[in-house]
Amino acid sequence: MHGSQQPTTMPIGKYVPFHEQIKVDLPDRTWPDKIIEKAPRWCAVDLRDGNQALIDPMDSERKMRMFKLLVQMGYKDIEVGFPSASDTDFNFVRELIDGGHIPDDVTIQVLTQCRDHLIEKTFDAIKGAPSAIVHFYNSTSVLQRRVVFNLDEDGIVDIALQGARLCKKLAETIPETKVYFEYSPESYTGTELEFAARICNEVIGVIEPTPDHKMIINLPATVEMATPNVYADSVEWMSRHLDSRESVVLSLHPHNDRGEGVAAAELGYMAGADRIEGCLFGNGERTGNVCLVTLGMNLFGQGIDPMIDFSDIQTIRSTVEYCNQLPVGERHPYGGDLVFTAFSGSHQDAIKKGFDDMERQSKETGKSIDELVWGVPYLPVDPHDVGRSYEAVVRVNSQSGKGGVSYLLKSEYNLDLPRRLQIEFAGVVQQWTDTAGGEVTPQWLWSTFSDEYLPGTGEGERAWGRFKPVGSQLDSTDDGRDKITVRLLDRGEPVTIAGEGNGPIDAFFDALSTIDVDVRLLDYTEHTLSSGEDSKAAAYVECAIGDRVLWGVGIHESTVRASLMAILSAVNRAERDAEAAAA
Amino acid sequence: MHGSQQPTTMPIGKYVPFHEQIKVDLPDRTWPDKIIEKAPRWCAVDLRDGNQALIDPMDSERKMRMFKLLVQMGYKDIEVGFPSASDTDFNFVRELIDGGHIPDDVTIQVLTQCRDHLIEKTFDAIKGAPSAIVHFYNSTSVLQRRVVFNLDEDGIVDIALQGARLCKKLAETIPETKVYFEYSPESYTGTELEFAARICNEVIGVIEPTPDHKMIINLPATVEMATPNVYADSVEWMSRHLDSRESVVLSLHPHNDRGEGVAAAELGYMAGADRIEGCLFGNGERTGNVCLVTLGMNLFGQGIDPMIDFSDIQTIRSTVEYCNQLPVGERHPYGGDLVFTAFSGSHQDAIKKGFDDMERQSKETGKSIDELVWGVPYLPVDPHDVGRSYEAVVRVNSQSGKGGVSYLLKSEYNLDLPRRLQIEFAGVVQQWTDTAGGEVTPQWLWSTFSDEYLPGTGEGERAWGRFKPVGSQLDSTDDGRDKITVRLLDRGEPVTIAGEGNGPIDAFFDALSTIDVDVRLLDYTEHTLSSGEDSKAAAYVECAIGDRVLWGVGIHESTVRASLMAILSAVNRAERDAEAAAA
Repeated sequence: MHGSQQPTTMPIGKYVPFHEQIKVDLPDRTWPDKIIEKAPRWCAVDLRDGNQALIDPMDSERKMRMFKLLVQMGYKDIEVGFPSASDTDFNFVRELIDGGHIPDDVTIQVLTQCRDHLIEKTFDAIKGAPSAIVHFYNSTSVLQRRVVFNLDEDGIVDIALQGARLCKKLAETIPETKVYFEYSPESYTGTELEFAARICNEVIGVIEPTPDHKMIINLPATVEMATPNVYADSVEWMSRHLDSRESVVLSLHPHNDRGEGVAAAELGYMAGADRIEGCLFGNGERTGNVCLVTLGMNLFGQGIDPMIDFSDIQTIRSTVEYCNQLPVGERHPYGGDLVFTAFSGSHQDAIKKGFDDMERQSKETGKSIDELVWGVPYLPVDPHDVGRSYEAVVRVNSQSGKGGVSYLLKSEYNLDLPRRLQIEFAGVVQQWTDTAGGEVTPQWLWSTFSDEYLPGTGEGERAWGRFKPVGSQLDSTDDGRDKITVRLLDRGEPVTIAGEGNGPIDAFFDALSTIDVDVRLLDYTEHTLSSGEDSKAAAYVECAIGDRVLWGVGIHESTVRASLMAILSAVNRAERDAEAAAA
Repeated sequence: MHGSQQPTTMPIGKYVPFHEQIKVDLPDRTWPDKIIEKAPRWCAVDLRDGNQALIDPMDSERKMRMFKLLVQMGYKDIEVGFPSASDTDFNFVRELIDGGHIPDDVTIQVLTQCRDHLIEKTFDAIKGAPSAIVHFYNSTSVLQRRVVFNLDEDGIVDIALQGARLCKKLAETIPETKVYFEYSPESYTGTELEFAARICNEVIGVIEPTPDHKMIINLPATVEMATPNVYADSVEWMSRHLDSRESVVLSLHPHNDRGEGVAAAELGYMAGADRIEGCLFGNGERTGNVCLVTLGMNLFGQGIDPMIDFSDIQTIRSTVEYCNQLPVGERHPYGGDLVFTAFSGSHQDAIKKGFDDMERQSKETGKSIDELVWGVPYLPVDPHDVGRSYEAVVRVNSQSGKGGVSYLLKSEYNLDLPRRLQIEFAGVVQQWTDTAGGEVTPQWLWSTFSDEYLPGTGEGERAWGRFKPVGSQLDSTDDGRDKITVRLLDRGEPVTIAGEGNGPIDAFFDALSTIDVDVRLLDYTEHTLSSGEDSKAAAYVECAIGDRVLWGVGIHESTVRASLMAILSAVNRAERDAEAAAA
C-alpha cells in the first residue's frame, strides 16, 4: 500500500521550477542561525495595496477610519494611496494634509509608477505635508520585461533612473516637506538577482542617500514564487550587494500566493531586512499581502514588543472588516473566531489544568497572571492579552457559544439567525448552561430556542404568552396603504384589532398601538426553511419595545403569518420579562 | 520620523522566546540547499483532526462525502477517525469496512491515545479491514509533562511503550488485517529534541519495523511555536538521530498558529521528512492544520506532479465547505474567490499582454496553451488548470463579475442578492458589458438590474411585461389555508384571479395556474432595505417556470406585495424571453 500514490493528468509540463528561472545561490547564508530579537520598522499599506484589491474600494470615510486605526495602533509609516492613479486617493491624501490629520511622528507614503506626469501629480498630492515617502517603482522581472515592456535591461534601468531623477528634482521644489524616497524593483521575485542589484544600485546612485537621510529599497514578492528560504537567501544576497548599505533601509513586501508570506517576511527579516510592508489581516491582491497582525503577534508571543498595540484585537478586526468589506477567516491566526477555542476533550482538559496551574502559581507567589510565565497548553498566547476572554474558550466547550449555537440551528433546523439574534440567543443559552451544566445537544438547543422564541403548540410546552394569534385579514391596493384586521387571544380573551400602514408589519404595529402595545421595527429578515410548495418561512424581527430591544421569531407556511408571529414573539417575550421582574 | 515606533504596554514579559525553551542547534544543517523535486507521501486527516475542530462535527453522510472526495483526489493514507473517543467515529470506521467502501490501494488510519481500553476499542474498530495504520500518541512536551501529567521523562516513556506493546500484541490477533503503526510524540514542538528522539527510538525498539514493513514516526507541530526554519532544523536533527531510519517513514503534522504551517511543512520536507499530514483548505484545531491544497498546488506550480488531482478545485472546495460547514476564505491560495482576480489597471494590462503573448506563441508553434511554458504576470498558475476560467479574471476588470456586482448592489442599494441570483445577474451584466464595453458604474448597474428584474415605474423605463399587479386581498385563518384574490393587468386587460394555499405565495401560484401560468417555487428570501416604519422589503424568488429556472425580484413597503411582485418579475422575465425567442 505504501507508495501507491498515482500520477495525475494535470498539465505539469507547462511550469518551470523556480530554480530553473532565477538563480539564487548563497551556500554561505547566515540567516538560519539568526534569531529575531526586536520588531522591524513596519509600514502599513492597507490604504494602497490593500485598497486596490477590494471589490468595493474604500470611500473617504472608510479610508479615514482605516488611517486612524493604523495611527492608533502605532504604525508610523503608512502608505495612504496611489494619488496619481485615482482621484479618490488624491483627494484623500489632500484631506489628510489639509485637515491636519497626520500626527507629527507619522509619515505618509504614496506610490507612483516611474512616469513623468504621474510623478508630478504625486508631488501635487503631498504638497504641504511635513514629511512624506515617495515610493516609485517599475517592473523588472524577466517575464514583464519581455511580455509587457518589450525592453532590454538598459531600457528598464532608464525608466527607473528617469523616475529617480524627476523625484529628486521635484522634492527640491517643496522644501517645506521632508521627502524620503523608496524604490521598488516590482516583480522582484521574478528578477535575476544581479539585475535587481544593478537597478537598485543605479537608483541609489541618483538619490544619493546618507545615513542621516536614508532611502528605502523595497524588495516585493509581488508574486510569491518559491519556498520562503529562497526569498531569505535572495534578501541576504541583496543586502550584501547593495551600495551605501548604511544609507539604505532594506524593506520587504511579501505577497502570499503560496501561503508563505508570513514565513517569507520573518526569514527575510532574519536575512538582513530592516522593514516590512503588509496589511492588517493580510488583505491585498489575490491571496493578499503579508498579515501585519500575525507578524506583530508572532513577536509578542516570543516576548518581543511588536511596537504596535494589539490589545483590542476585536476592534481592530471589526474596523478592518468594515473598511475592507471582507470577513476575517474563522481560523486566521490571533484574530479568527475559532483560534482560542478547543473542541477535543483532551485539549480542554489540558487547558483547564494549565489555567489551574497558573492560578496556583499566582496564589503562591502573590503575582498576577501577567507577571508569571504564560504556560497553558494549546493556547500559544493568553487570549486576554488581545482583549479576548477565557470564557469564550470555555463556553464553546459545551457548544453553547455564539458560533456553536447558530451553526447547530442552521445545520439541524435550517434556521439562519441574524447575527444580533445569535448574540442575544447565546446569552439565553449561556444562562441555562450555567445553571444546568453538561453538554449541549441539538435537541436541548432546539427546545431552549422554542421555549424562548416560539409558541408551544403541543402538550407540556410553554404557552404563547400574553398574545396568541387566531386569524388575520389583509387588504392591499397598489396605490394605497395596507389594512389589516387581526384576531387575537389576549390572556385568553378574544380581541380583534385593526390598523393600517405600509405593508402588513407596519399595519400590525398600528393595530397593536390601539391596545397600548408600543413596538417599533428595527430589523427584519425572512427566509424559507426549504424549497417546495408547502415549505415554511422563518421571520426574524428586532423590535424596540418600550425601552428594550428584543428579537422575535415566527415560523409558518405563510410569510405574512410568520412575520406577524415574530412580532408577537418579541412582544410576548417583553411581557414575560416584565412579569418575571414584577413577581 | 524614522525609528519613531513606540513600545506598547502589552505584557510581553510573560512570554519566553522559543530558543530559551527548547534548544535546536544544527549549524551544519543541509536543508536550505535542498530543492523539492517530488511529492511527499500525503496523509489527509480531515476526518479526524479536521473534524474534531468543527463547531458542528460531520455526521456519517458528511463523513462519507469527505472520504469519497479524498479517495477521488488520490489520497492513499486517510485518517478516518478517533474511534475510541467517539461512537460516531467508531460507527463510521465500521461502515467503511463493512460497507466495502475502502479501495484496495487506500489505507485507513485511526488515532488513539496510549491507554489500554482505548487501544482495545481501536482494534475493534479496524477488525476486518484489509490494512490499517494504528496511530498512537502521548503528549511529551515540557509543559504537558509538568502541568497535565505530573510525570518525569521515564513516566512519559512508559506510557508510550505500554501503548506500543499493546498495539503490537493486538495486531497479532487480527492477522487478516495488515496493520501498520504510527507513533506521535504529541506536542513535539514543545519537547526537548533529545527526549523526543529517546521516546521515538524506544517505541521503534518495541515495534521493530523493517524496510519492508516500516513504521511512521510523526512529528506534530501541535502548536506552532517558532519560525519554520527552526522546525526544519529540528526535523533534520531528528532524521539524523532516529534509529532504523531506513525502516521509518518520517512524517510531519504542522499546525498554523503563527501562520507558517505551509512553510513548516515544505522546509521540514526539505529537511528529510517523507510524509505530510494535513487537511483540505487547512481545517483543524484553532488556526487549523496545514492546507493540503496549498501544498499540492505549490508543487504543481513548480512543474512537480502533486500525485493528487486538483483539476476541479471548485468541487473540492464546495464539498469541503459542505462537510465542514465553514467557508473557504476569499484569499485562500488557489481556492479563494479572489485569487485569480486582478483589480489594478496595471495588473490587468500586464495579464492581458501575457495572455496575448501565449496566444501568439500558440499560433506560431501550433501548440496548445498546455504545451507552452506558462507565463502570464500576476497569475502564478493558469486558472484553467484548476477548473477556473480566464473569463472570471477579466470579468472583474469592469467590476461586472459576481462579487463586484453583488457588493455594489449591497453597498449602494442595500440589496443582498442570494448567491444563485448573483450568478444569474452576473450573466446579464456580462452580456451587456460585452456589447457596450467600458467601465461599470453603480448607476449603470442599478439601471441594468432594474430593467431586468424590476418594473419600470417612471417614464422611459421598461414596462412591467405581460402582467402588472393592481391589488390583492388575503384571508388567513390559523387552522385553514390562505385565500388570495389578486387583480392584475394581463397585457393591459384587467383580470382578477383567486387561489388558495399555504401562505400568500402558494396561494398566488394556485391563482396563476387558473390562467395557465405554470410556476413553482424553488427558493425564497426576503429582507428589509433599512430599519424604520416605512422601510421597504426586497423579496427574491427562484422559480421553475416551464422547463426554465429564473429569479424574480420585488421591492415594496409591504412584504406580501414584495413577494408577489417578485413572482411576477420571474414570470414576466420568462414571457419576455419566450417572446424574444419567437421574434
